[in-house]
Amino acid sequence: MRKIAIIGIGQTKVDEHWQDSVVDLAVEAVQAAKFDAGREDIESLFVSNMMSGTLNQQLNLAALVADRSGLKGVEATHIEAACGSGGVALRQAMLAVASGEVASALVVGVEKMTDTLGSETTKSLAMAADADYELAQGATFVALNALIMQRYMYEYGWKHEDFAPFAVNAHANAVHNPYARLRKAISAETFTNARMIASPVGLFDASATGDGAAAVVIVPYDSVGKSASAVTIAGSAVAVDTVSLHDRKDGLWLTAAEQSAKRAYAQANIQPADVDFFELHDAFSIMAALSLEACGFAERGKGPRVGLERDISPQGELPLSTHGGLKARGHPVGATGIYQVVEATQQLRGTAGALQVPDAEIGLVQNIGGAGTTIATHVLARVN
Amino acid sequence: MRKIAIIGIGQTKVDEHWQDSVVDLAVEAVQAAKFDAGREDIESLFVSNMMSGTLNQQLNLAALVADRSGLKGVEATHIEAACGSGGVALRQAMLAVASGEVASALVVGVEKMTDTLGSETTKSLAMAADADYELAQGATFVALNALIMQRYMYEYGWKHEDFAPFAVNAHANAVHNPYARLRKAISAETFTNARMIASPVGLFDASATGDGAAAVVIVPYDSVGKSASAVTIAGSAVAVDTVSLHDRKDGLWLTAAEQSAKRAYAQANIQPADVDFFELHDAFSIMAALSLEACGFAERGKGPRVGLERDISPQGELPLSTHGGLKARGHPVGATGIYQVVEATQQLRGTAGALQVPDAEIGLVQNIGGAGTTIATHVLARVN
Repeated sequence: MRKIAIIGIGQTKVDEHWQDSVVDLAVEAVQAAKFDAGREDIESLFVSNMMSGTLNQQLNLAALVADRSGLKGVEATHIEAACGSGGVALRQAMLAVASGEVASALVVGVEKMTDTLGSETTKSLAMAADADYELAQGATFVALNALIMQRYMYEYGWKHEDFAPFAVNAHANAVHNPYARLRKAISAETFTNARMIASPVGLFDASATGDGAAAVVIVPYDSVGKSASAVTIAGSAVAVDTVSLHDRKDGLWLTAAEQSAKRAYAQANIQPADVDFFELHDAFSIMAALSLEACGFAERGKGPRVGLERDISPQGELPLSTHGGLKARGHPVGATGIYQVVEATQQLRGTAGALQVPDAEIGLVQNIGGAGTTIATHVLARVN
Repeated sequence: MRKIAIIGIGQTKVDEHWQDSVVDLAVEAVQAAKFDAGREDIESLFVSNMMSGTLNQQLNLAALVADRSGLKGVEATHIEAACGSGGVALRQAMLAVASGEVASALVVGVEKMTDTLGSETTKSLAMAADADYELAQGATFVALNALIMQRYMYEYGWKHEDFAPFAVNAHANAVHNPYARLRKAISAETFTNARMIASPVGLFDASATGDGAAAVVIVPYDSVGKSASAVTIAGSAVAVDTVSLHDRKDGLWLTAAEQSAKRAYAQANIQPADVDFFELHDAFSIMAALSLEACGFAERGKGPRVGLERDISPQGELPLSTHGGLKARGHPVGATGIYQVVEATQQLRGTAGALQVPDAEIGLVQNIGGAGTTIATHVLARVN
């Protein structure tokens, strides 16, 4: 496949943006990415968003973002895969550029979650699960993740406090990310003593919601001046598993994460040991543990050991969630997959400041929609 | 770009399917298309749907359809572009296959509109327009089309009855389409005397809602035995215009239809005169007239003359809506663009029965999301 380069990135702070509509947020990220790329000639716009219909009474969103961004006459595509919308949109944008039909694409992820009742947001988020078989039982999305975590702790003997390092690291990193929502450090005690949301998922196991948008511009690598250093997408794959937990043969293994990671590794010709940092989908701490296992960084049932025994800070052995992750940068769901790519690009460009992973050459990015259902894995690499 | 062939088609009847969920409908069309294609090896699933979140409390729909169709481990993408979702999804599936990364893709369009209050469906359909600037004024989607039609009749001197031939032809064709919702012929008098919905849009200017799903399987043409006749996608383009009518420089011209048609014609190396039949987006009769103008079949302001002066039946000079169109086959919005492609494929295979366009070699398909906003145009051609 034709090699793809990321030439522009943009993002808004993840926050409660009371003054901005879902479209305003997207436009801000689009303009920032175009400015960063230094070019205006976008041929195709991809918008990743989960809930603009249910929360913002707005569908046909890709056309509206194109319209307000001044991108008239382009083609515009809205892609939704619950919290994995961003990763899936990047994948499709990449294929469009790789086809040779599209010379440049801009992918913007956006979500506006706070301008509504919390109960409405909870109800919409649960639509990532199976309406007929899971939601009809009264399950929320947090409850489904709690079921997985409960079983995981039971099967492998972990205590709740063993998951603390993931959240502590994410919060420590977010302090230095001006775009993060929760820019405050927490201790392991804070994690452990926090109030319970849906046992065993405590307040600091769960990521922060928020409004936000992030964008990237991609082009064929061979259209970029070869002397300059560039960030390329060396591997890209999406796989899906069952939606309902009860349909899954193995409820404690992210099959779609394993499948998509293996494909992406093969494309990039790398092993897990080659990965310099991992932007994982820490929507819940149990998902961080399971992703590490499925992607080859821990044995089955031993995900929490990565946080407990290895240095996962940006300067450590296996840096995770370098800009705060979903946990502390925040999780504006349809935008999250693109935030991850923006942050990985900052690492590979060497512009991550206090959060810089030394000599970062290969970054892994994984975005999950549903409770382990739709999983997009990308390998980003620095060239030159 | 690599040439793409359509090797399988499937559809459900457009109807009130009280016993089937949105997922059930999609699965039925998926299985039919796979059976027709004679192969199981689908690598990528695209689901086009507008309103499953707002009407069926179900997002992450692509993964769920893959799951229930037995397509585990594939990649799955949900694409939304209001009523133009199907055309946009076909375009992206085509680019995915053209990239060389995906050997086979299945695109299924689905919508379940009737299992809810009519007022809820009306509210959701209106989300194709601008929530902040149009819906906030109380506009429904029918009302926006009525504004366009009113102005068109005023500017060019047409009477309401002049639009009758589009609906009369569509209903006459639907009689012979077992998958159509409104299988009954109407007269011009019925059209003219029908009750007014939003002046000047009468009951028979507007298309029928409904539940339904349609699917196509596409592969690289060079992977199909060359001796067999095949249906190929010779031209494909999507363009977007403003969402709000008040932002449009020219409210009586479908700029995105013109742009996408011109690109698709150039790719296919054809002129409008080469088109043997046109599956147009007759969601409202005014849209039929405007599409004919923008695509080069009538001069500006003269769209209704095509119906009044030319034979638009399947055996006529310029066959339109050969299987009943949105008007009478029905318009399950996210599925419509794929129904059009399924019907065009039937024509090019020569399997359209009583609706067969003699010696059909080139078919034009146009799908519109919003009031002229997101427009996908495809040229389908028979090879051999």
